[in-house]
Amino acid sequence: MALLFLSYPERGEVWKRVFAAAGEEIFLGIEEVRDPAAVTHIATWVPPVDLSAYPNLEVLISIGAGVDQMPRLPEGVRLSRTLAASVDTMVRNWVVMAVLMLSRDMPTYLAQAARGDWRAQPIVPAAKLRIGILGLGRIGQMAAAALLALGYPVAGWSRSGRPVEGVEVYGAAQLPEFLARSDVLICLLPLTPETRGLLDAAFLAQLPMGARLVQAGRGAQLDMGALRAALDSGRLVSAMLDVTDPEPLPQDHWAWTDPRVIVTPHVGGQTDAEEGAQHALAVIRAGRAGQPLPGLVEQARGY
Amino acid sequence: MALLFLSYPERGEVWKRVFAAAGEEIFLGIEEVRDPAAVTHIATWVPPVDLSAYPNLEVLISIGAGVDQMPRLPEGVRLSRTLAASVDTMVRNWVVMAVLMLSRDMPTYLAQAARGDWRAQPIVPAAKLRIGILGLGRIGQMAAAALLALGYPVAGWSRSGRPVEGVEVYGAAQLPEFLARSDVLICLLPLTPETRGLLDAAFLAQLPMGARLVQAGRGAQLDMGALRAALDSGRLVSAMLDVTDPEPLPQDHWAWTDPRVIVTPHVGGQTDAEEGAQHALAVIRAGRAGQPLPGLVEQARGY
Repeated sequence: MALLFLSYPERGEVWKRVFAAAGEEIFLGIEEVRDPAAVTHIATWVPPVDLSAYPNLEVLISIGAGVDQMPRLPEGVRLSRTLAASVDTMVRNWVVMAVLMLSRDMPTYLAQAARGDWRAQPIVPAAKLRIGILGLGRIGQMAAAALLALGYPVAGWSRSGRPVEGVEVYGAAQLPEFLARSDVLICLLPLTPETRGLLDAAFLAQLPMGARLVQAGRGAQLDMGALRAALDSGRLVSAMLDVTDPEPLPQDHWAWTDPRVIVTPHVGGQTDAEEGAQHALAVIRAGRAGQPLPGLVEQARGY
Repeated sequence: MALLFLSYPERGEVWKRVFAAAGEEIFLGIEEVRDPAAVTHIATWVPPVDLSAYPNLEVLISIGAGVDQMPRLPEGVRLSRTLAASVDTMVRNWVVMAVLMLSRDMPTYLAQAARGDWRAQPIVPAAKLRIGILGLGRIGQMAAAALLALGYPVAGWSRSGRPVEGVEVYGAAQLPEFLARSDVLICLLPLTPETRGLLDAAFLAQLPMGARLVQAGRGAQLDMGALRAALDSGRLVSAMLDVTDPEPLPQDHWAWTDPRVIVTPHVGGQTDAEEGAQHALAVIRAGRAGQPLPGLVEQARGY
């Protein structure tokens, strides 16, 4: 029983230390594997190898929160994604920053600063900007709590429609009503067949005029052309994107320099190596004990 | 007993409505005053009139949170500043935004965006960035609570040294120790003779190398030349300023276009007209009832 680690070498050193302390076997890279049959777990972002070469592979562990980048797995191999509290906190904080920047007109002030223009815009009080969160998973709920504490009214849209404290929750069928009342829309959805391309022209047209968009989901969910058209029509006044289509965003892409758009290069969160290694250990131990795997992904559903 | 309102006419209309509903007398502008002896209260930001022309003036009400802009008052006239919860929330949110923007390297990402450069910087987890708040008044305490909730360790420096929940408080004499442990320094001090010019070269030199500065106090507290030198030496990596010296910042000032500095044009907070009028009513009623005045400023201390 051993884990094969396939990622950055500097992170591998941290994993090696954690595994040594726990008395578990780890291979840093395929060159350390003498017998492929010994490999029961592989931890990686995108598998750079043919998984069928490992006949006893039990679990593939995504070292990040996402799993949409993973290929179809061999029959019987389970998929676990890293649940790292530090990543959740990072993404939550990026989202809070983005909401504040858009609701306090930072795109306008940055454009004014470039020409030395000292001119105040009227402040819309937080209480009058209705936040809408697409996706009320762990991070969505954390973002909701933080934004409520800053004085924003918060609603959310989730497939389950399960109640969340302080949040007006809309179920799957209520998307139009949810969009129509969202002055600041935050996308925190996972990438699945249902969410790919979801944020298109018809979708954005359901927002109130002058809305703001925060995209912290996955690049392939937002049609960049529809975004530009919504900005041109005034449907959206500004947008902040941590993920784009494509990634990386090409150097000459219009979104880089459009004053209504702020792009960050997919830096909402980064998994801490120590936390990632601890998650992998927990997966190995749970499997050995026949307990439910931490971070187990329902592969048909996609998250 | 009447209040003379000296500020923007569109705000005056809101005050007029509030005062009419309360059965109190108000003059919108000096042209409405027939008998100066009737004026007992004046509400303004900076008095555009000779106050000694109003023999029965009891209270001057600052329509904003600051009072440093007020002239010396005639003997016996008291000074009240508007305590508007909406302004406190606005300033708190601006400060939270500024801390997030600096701690998540927005100055770097904005500079990268201008040249279409998709490159991730390592994220410093919130738990590893020590916040230091200069001034633990109402807004300082609100900012502390919000930043603690986002995962930052928070310390504060106050003259009284009074304890604040979750915050490591340093007293007046412990400024050097406080500065030495502040990775992100937030200035929320009022402008007084003691704080004018406080943030000079010797002061900034006490911060850790690579610190970040958030200035939400008053422009005259920060020596802009010392700021530039601290950025050049690497003492500071970035700064976000809502107040500057002078204000407005001249169009050709270096700070507008320095990629390490983000300037907003004194828009941390704006008093809501309705709330301002309600504060003035509360001052009038408290005076009539012989009760302590809301927002009373100890004029010798300056806040």
